Amino acid sequence: MNLTVYLAGQIHDDWRDQLEQKAKEKELPLTFVAPQTNHDLSDDIGENILGKQPGNVYRDDAASSINNLRTQVLMEKADVVIALFGEQYKQWNTAMDASAAITMNKPTIIIRPESLIHPLKELSNKANVTVETVDQALEVLNYIYV
Amino acid sequence: MNLTVYLAGQIHDDWRDQLEQKAKEKELPLTFVAPQTNHDLSDDIGENILGKQPGNVYRDDAASSINNLRTQVLMEKADVVIALFGEQYKQWNTAMDASAAITMNKPTIIIRPESLIHPLKELSNKANVTVETVDQALEVLNYIYV
Amino acid sequence: MNLTVYLAGQIHDDWRDQLEQKAKEKELPLTFVAPQTNHDLSDDIGENILGKQPGNVYRDDAASSINNLRTQVLMEKADVVIALFGEQYKQWNTAMDASAAITMNKPTIIIRPESLIHPLKELSNKANVTVETVDQALEVLNYIYV
Amino acid sequence: MNLTVYLAGQIHDDWRDQLEQKAKEKELPLTFVAPQTNHDLSDDIGENILGKQPGNVYRDDAASSINNLRTQVLMEKADVVIALFGEQYKQWNTAMDASAAITMNKPTIIIRPESLIHPLKELSNKANVTVETVDQALEVLNYIYV
Amino acid sequence: MNLTVYLAGQIHDDWRDQLEQKAKEKELPLTFVAPQTNHDLSDDIGENILGKQPGNVYRDDAASSINNLRTQVLMEKADVVIALFGEQYKQWNTAMDASAAITMNKPTIIIRPESLIHPLKELSNKANVTVETVDQALEVLNYIYV
Amino acid sequence: MNLTVYLAGQIHDDWRDQLEQKAKEKELPLTFVAPQTNHDLSDDIGENILGKQPGNVYRDDAASSINNLRTQVLMEKADVVIALFGEQYKQWNTAMDASAAITMNKPTIIIRPESLIHPLKELSNKANVTVETVDQALEVLNYIYV
Amino acid sequence: MNLTVYLAGQIHDDWRDQLEQKAKEKELPLTFVAPQTNHDLSDDIGENILGKQPGNVYRDDAASSINNLRTQVLMEKADVVIALFGEQYKQWNTAMDASAAITMNKPTIIIRPESLIHPLKELSNKANVTVETVDQALEVLNYIYV
Amino acid sequence: MNLTVYLAGQIHDDWRDQLEQKAKEKELPLTFVAPQTNHDLSDDIGENILGKQPGNVYRDDAASSINNLRTQVLMEKADVVIALFGEQYKQWNTAMDASAAITMNKPTIIIRPESLIHPLKELSNKANVTVETVDQALEVLNYIYV
Repeated sequence: MNLTVYLAGQIHDDWRDQLEQKAKEKELPLTFVAPQTNHDLSDDIGENILGKQPGNVYRDDAASSINNLRTQVLMEKADVVIALFGEQYKQWNTAMDASAAITMNKPTIIIRPESLIHPLKELSNKANVTVETVDQALEVLNYIYV
Repeated sequence: MNLTVYLAGQIHDDWRDQLEQKAKEKELPLTFVAPQTNHDLSDDIGENILGKQPGNVYRDDAASSINNLRTQVLMEKADVVIALFGEQYKQWNTAMDASAAITMNKPTIIIRPESLIHPLKELSNKANVTVETVDQALEVLNYIYV
Repeated sequence: MNLTVYLAGQIHDDWRDQLEQKAKEKELPLTFVAPQTNHDLSDDIGENILGKQPGNVYRDDAASSINNLRTQVLMEKADVVIALFGEQYKQWNTAMDASAAITMNKPTIIIRPESLIHPLKELSNKANVTVETVDQALEVLNYIYV
Repeated sequence: MNLTVYLAGQIHDDWRDQLEQKAKEKELPLTFVAPQTNHDLSDDIGENILGKQPGNVYRDDAASSINNLRTQVLMEKADVVIALFGEQYKQWNTAMDASAAITMNKPTIIIRPESLIHPLKELSNKANVTVETVDQALEVLNYIYV
Repeated sequence: MNLTVYLAGQIHDDWRDQLEQKAKEKELPLTFVAPQTNHDLSDDIGENILGKQPGNVYRDDAASSINNLRTQVLMEKADVVIALFGEQYKQWNTAMDASAAITMNKPTIIIRPESLIHPLKELSNKANVTVETVDQALEVLNYIYV
Repeated sequence: MNLTVYLAGQIHDDWRDQLEQKAKEKELPLTFVAPQTNHDLSDDIGENILGKQPGNVYRDDAASSINNLRTQVLMEKADVVIALFGEQYKQWNTAMDASAAITMNKPTIIIRPESLIHPLKELSNKANVTVETVDQALEVLNYIYV
Repeated sequence: MNLTVYLAGQIHDDWRDQLEQKAKEKELPLTFVAPQTNHDLSDDIGENILGKQPGNVYRDDAASSINNLRTQVLMEKADVVIALFGEQYKQWNTAMDASAAITMNKPTIIIRPESLIHPLKELSNKANVTVETVDQALEVLNYIYV
Repeated sequence: MNLTVYLAGQIHDDWRDQLEQKAKEKELPLTFVAPQTNHDLSDDIGENILGKQPGNVYRDDAASSINNLRTQVLMEKADVVIALFGEQYKQWNTAMDASAAITMNKPTIIIRPESLIHPLKELSNKANVTVETVDQALEVLNYIYV
């Protein structure tokens, strides 16, 4: 049974590549999708397509409209959502994606370091499973097949 | 036409009281509901009801389960959701509530200072309206009645 | 049984007042809601609340975000939707509101002059009832109570 | 990941062919569907199948019932909807399709010339993305894959 | 707890009046709604409002569009649906209303004489409860309150 | 684009075979599903599987529970529903299936002889398209592909 | 804000009365509804209304059809569901009601003694909150209002 | 037409293997999925992935969160659900899965021995079909294809 997994969360390290690589080693029939992980491109895409905007708020709104369309298409295809929170940055998109997924009844796994237990407690409680590492999230995916 | 407004967002100042007071002055027929705004109570409620838990992660999970039930009941009643982001704290509950509201097709207003335009750009784009001040949010509510 | 009726459509004459007046004469227990019918206000509301925008596209987007929130709140309350098309103007908001209402399974009446039969044929076919005059629409509402 | 794209909008030029051709050149795995683009056929289909009708209003209703079935089948299959507005004609079907798609939570792109910014402002605001050219819409589709 | 009960079914005798009278005697807090029970009016309403139609098929379609709007408004308000089948007539509207109610998850009671057990077996099986008399249906409603 | 078509309606002639044969000749990529068309089997299936029942009402209920499961599985798969009414029999299952399909937003075609216009007028009005012959229904299906 | 609370669970002691009494003492604006708590009546109701059935399986099915209608009406009205499991009996109706409530997105509280932690672990995990005593459940309800 | 069947129910014997084997002999195009049937693994999976928990209630909650994610993914894929109840154990997960499936409008078959007729009567009544043996359930599945 093929499943599609949406990988929400921070885009500042290669956690998605690690997860995909390990899933491949285990020969799990998973297809991974994700928000735009090229940070510059995700900031520039509005002006790239729509042209120069009159200031940052408009530039950001143009980019986000296109990022949101992209995410909506891909999350709709997802059977499972994984949302990884790191210790830096505000990561409101991660919270937004996780909360949208849960509200859409997508089975959802949150990955967060121990230091974030308290600020993420309500979101963790609403998700199906909360783990601390990418490897643990992969074990949860693997468990679907055993 | 009476409307119920859920006020998501930070609980460290009295913005809800200000908004309610001004709505009363305008004689708008609004009922306001909100997450638990007593921060200590919202952290303690799990152990208050369920007894001592074996460590912080369990204490937090117990509290959040009760906070989430409370929010779910009240947000279901809401006709409009307002989510205020401030400059401090991670405020993932605010993002969670706003994203859940949008996904449930609740008309949603985000209040955020100019400094947060960039990190909130995708969530702002998904909301109906984004403003910078509580007074502006009240003007939007007022506009429903004019 | 009280019903709420959303009156979509052109805002350049007083058809809503006529309809409400006649409903009152018939003592029908109806509450009428509508999009913003003050045209200037509906164009200005974005800048009124959010301040001067850098050009017309941004001014229009600001206004429309607030108009859309207002419409979403009110249409959600509606038990019936009436959409009136006139012979002038593009009236895409009327088509947008009627189509949204039909997709939300709101019982929908379209009022349109004979001259618009052809361009409105698909939308008319999707609506429950299509009539030519405001009086006919009122008769349909009246029929719910006899 | 294969996606199906519904192309709503005017049928008086070959914008759909251009879009499909360019998508093919980029090797995007897209399937395009659309309303009936043979204008005469879309007007005649009711009488073609159901026989002569007693006047234009009935002829139009017969045709539109079959056009609406066709559109409903195809839009249900769509992962993304693009709606193009041109400067002529009333194009209420385009507005109807775009509004239905948005209400069904289909990610939606509107293409409209600068001259139509004002009359389309509420619909544009509800769509995910608004662009001015077919090429820009294609860039948005392309962005889903990069 | 007030409940609204939609009474689908034949309009050729006074079973609705009997049911309402007996509910009143039991002081059950029920509001009853129903399709148009004036048969002539339900056949004429299309031409009454829209004017003379070019033949029976168009006359019937005009009437049914208005009857369907009326039913849709009232059934949406219903907490319970009762559908009575008699031994004469085709009663496809009764079957249509019962099936729509069941599909909308409205709790549904079917009343049918013993002679109709076989042709109604699939619909009876989908309904919550099937009884043979109006009095039995009233007993089921009464049971909600004991 | 492959589509699945559920063929509701009478099981006393071979209209389904005719339709399938003609669809094959036109090389339309359609898969047809249907309720159980072996009448005896559809009446006996309850006792065949569950054993002898204590009388006809129980025998019928046992059979219908299994027929309903079968229909629910297949209709859920359908992209289009065709419901054929003939001049004999009560055909409440046809009305039940058509109404369920329409309520589930399945595009629906009704086939009925001219003699049934009046008793089917409300159901016809709710369906997308009403035709008189199997060939006309096939032309509607064919139109999806041209 | 008035809320309706559905009290699923065992009917062999007076836990509902205790809960209602304590809610009254706290002046909480709650309306309580419940499945039929008169055990004999809930077993007899089928034959009471429909007459003698040919054996226990039919007698039970008749009763359950009426109990299920009653529950469906009342649970649809509920804003919160409480499900109490005791140490005896199979209590599959309690599990059925709790699972239905959770699937319908009703905020749900489970009350179960410590001895049932293990067999109820998956259902507890899906509910919003799990407590051990009726008093704790009341505290959770009370927390909605503080 | 390939169908996916979720097999809820007890995990203490090999009824799933028997069912799958017989389906294979009949060459039915069915894919079977199920909850975790390795009982020890289903109890240990929480600590296996998340590490040692501070006591049984936390150990059970950790395991159940992962079991529930697994079940939610697989049941979402199911076209039909079969739930088998045996004479031992509380089997609340079976009741939970069956009730969730029914509430999600999944066609559902319950298998239960005669001894469980009474305690399962409401759940049986809500399911599509109730049978006593695995072979009978297979016959129901087989009937979809004849």
